[in-house]
Amino acid sequence: MEPVVSIIDILGTVAFAISGVITATKKRMDLFGILIIATVTSVGGGTLRDLLIGKSPVSWLLNTTFVYTILVTTIVGVIFRKQLHYVRKSLFLFDTIGIALYTITGTQMGILIDLHPAICVALGTITACFGGVIRDILCNEIPVIFRKEIYASACILGGSVYIGLIHLGATPGVTAIIAGATVILVRTLAVVYELQLPSIYTKAEREQND
Amino acid sequence: MEPVVSIIDILGTVAFAISGVITATKKRMDLFGILIIATVTSVGGGTLRDLLIGKSPVSWLLNTTFVYTILVTTIVGVIFRKQLHYVRKSLFLFDTIGIALYTITGTQMGILIDLHPAICVALGTITACFGGVIRDILCNEIPVIFRKEIYASACILGGSVYIGLIHLGATPGVTAIIAGATVILVRTLAVVYELQLPSIYTKAEREQND
Amino acid sequence: MEPVVSIIDILGTVAFAISGVITATKKRMDLFGILIIATVTSVGGGTLRDLLIGKSPVSWLLNTTFVYTILVTTIVGVIFRKQLHYVRKSLFLFDTIGIALYTITGTQMGILIDLHPAICVALGTITACFGGVIRDILCNEIPVIFRKEIYASACILGGSVYIGLIHLGATPGVTAIIAGATVILVRTLAVVYELQLPSIYTKAEREQND
Repeated sequence: MEPVVSIIDILGTVAFAISGVITATKKRMDLFGILIIATVTSVGGGTLRDLLIGKSPVSWLLNTTFVYTILVTTIVGVIFRKQLHYVRKSLFLFDTIGIALYTITGTQMGILIDLHPAICVALGTITACFGGVIRDILCNEIPVIFRKEIYASACILGGSVYIGLIHLGATPGVTAIIAGATVILVRTLAVVYELQLPSIYTKAEREQND
Repeated sequence: MEPVVSIIDILGTVAFAISGVITATKKRMDLFGILIIATVTSVGGGTLRDLLIGKSPVSWLLNTTFVYTILVTTIVGVIFRKQLHYVRKSLFLFDTIGIALYTITGTQMGILIDLHPAICVALGTITACFGGVIRDILCNEIPVIFRKEIYASACILGGSVYIGLIHLGATPGVTAIIAGATVILVRTLAVVYELQLPSIYTKAEREQND
Repeated sequence: MEPVVSIIDILGTVAFAISGVITATKKRMDLFGILIIATVTSVGGGTLRDLLIGKSPVSWLLNTTFVYTILVTTIVGVIFRKQLHYVRKSLFLFDTIGIALYTITGTQMGILIDLHPAICVALGTITACFGGVIRDILCNEIPVIFRKEIYASACILGGSVYIGLIHLGATPGVTAIIAGATVILVRTLAVVYELQLPSIYTKAEREQND
């Protein structure tokens, strides 16, 4: 399984890095700024998770594969940035696979150090979502995930499925596949059918703000 | 004393979480965003303190009471958000008790690992104030505490009183009560009499910016 | 060498703190806010580095010299803030010496714990640059270093020189001096000749955004 996971891992990193490139170029950042935003989007969630659970040094300091993947992705992404919308669907796929993978890794790490199931799901969600949150903060935006993206819900659901199946005695391999598929399915359905969390605001409130 | 401290702790968590709900709903965040902002406001200061002193995993990962308190508070807060101003005074009281408690906890932790008194006071202030700072950053605002809230000063004063009394040989229990009362008194007087730190800006400078 | 390094260290801290004071007063922060921004600008980069590599407690908690230096600098800086532009050139010099020093310290720490050379350079750059990044985020600005400042490139180059010379067998002392001089030279030339990273944007794109 190892090489397969690695390829998925790299595809996820590429997708996250490109989402960083897209956000950073919109803000007219220079090459250094774009590289930092791409890096933070890719490794930010895992870094925050590692800090919270006290894993040190944090993972990406020990694995240059990710650093080089991000570097190459950023350069290629900047050169072809006008063509990025042609591969939008592939990017969405990679990105979704990436958050599924990150959700599972984060949840597993919580289980490994015997944290409460709810906390494990939180760690999985943080791993998958907070790279994008830090990206948006560095770009001086309210994190998009707090306003309309549904993918946090997909991560919470996927993490819960993972915890549930492990408690029911399923093997980690099967559990990871089912939980990952849950994240991918929920997010894809949400995007295809334009689902959002039910709004808590009245029509008047929403108009006042838009 | 344990149960009393726990109730105070929970009241503080509730007050902080509600201040998060209020800020997040003003920004028209969705349910997930509101939950994250409520969580960050409640546990952010303690998390930063734990990271700085190297306590791992950080406290809230090990205590689901806070997580559930925040979850329930967020849901209730969102449902009754139009009624929140009726309980404004109770919220102010809880919030003030919360920062008093967080100031003392943070200062104590610094003493426990033998840090310099000035650093202990800084840790207490960080514990009490940085949840709100992270909340404001995630909501894309300059932290309110940097511009007009006086409560950082109340924390610094309370932490200093704590350190001073301990050095004079007072028991931790008595010291905590006096230091906590100092924070509560200073903050309440500041709000009642609308005290602010003396402005360093000339009238012309202030007008230019408002 | 120890006292010389300490004086340089303090001059760097002073320069960083003053850059914090300047940014914070522009945002009309109160005294507490200015102090926090000055502190974060000075110790933020080193704190992030310590967190990433798992050094705890983080350095500034153990060394009150920096805390007092920042406190005094902030007070003096606020009092004489209208006169700060008269010492602009000295500040630039101190600041440049500061980033050279921080780059070297950060790179050395990475080497000490056997990280990959590219990661060591990244740690040096983070130490030198992320104080300013956190300052800008707290002030609700897109970090200036992501848009036009060239000094990240100076740090990356200086860190690489350090790693290269150490691998070639140079002594740490000589290496530090040459690498530090590289940072100072590159940054000074960049400012004098108004060099920037080559823009990746077309003229139309830039105008659209300005």
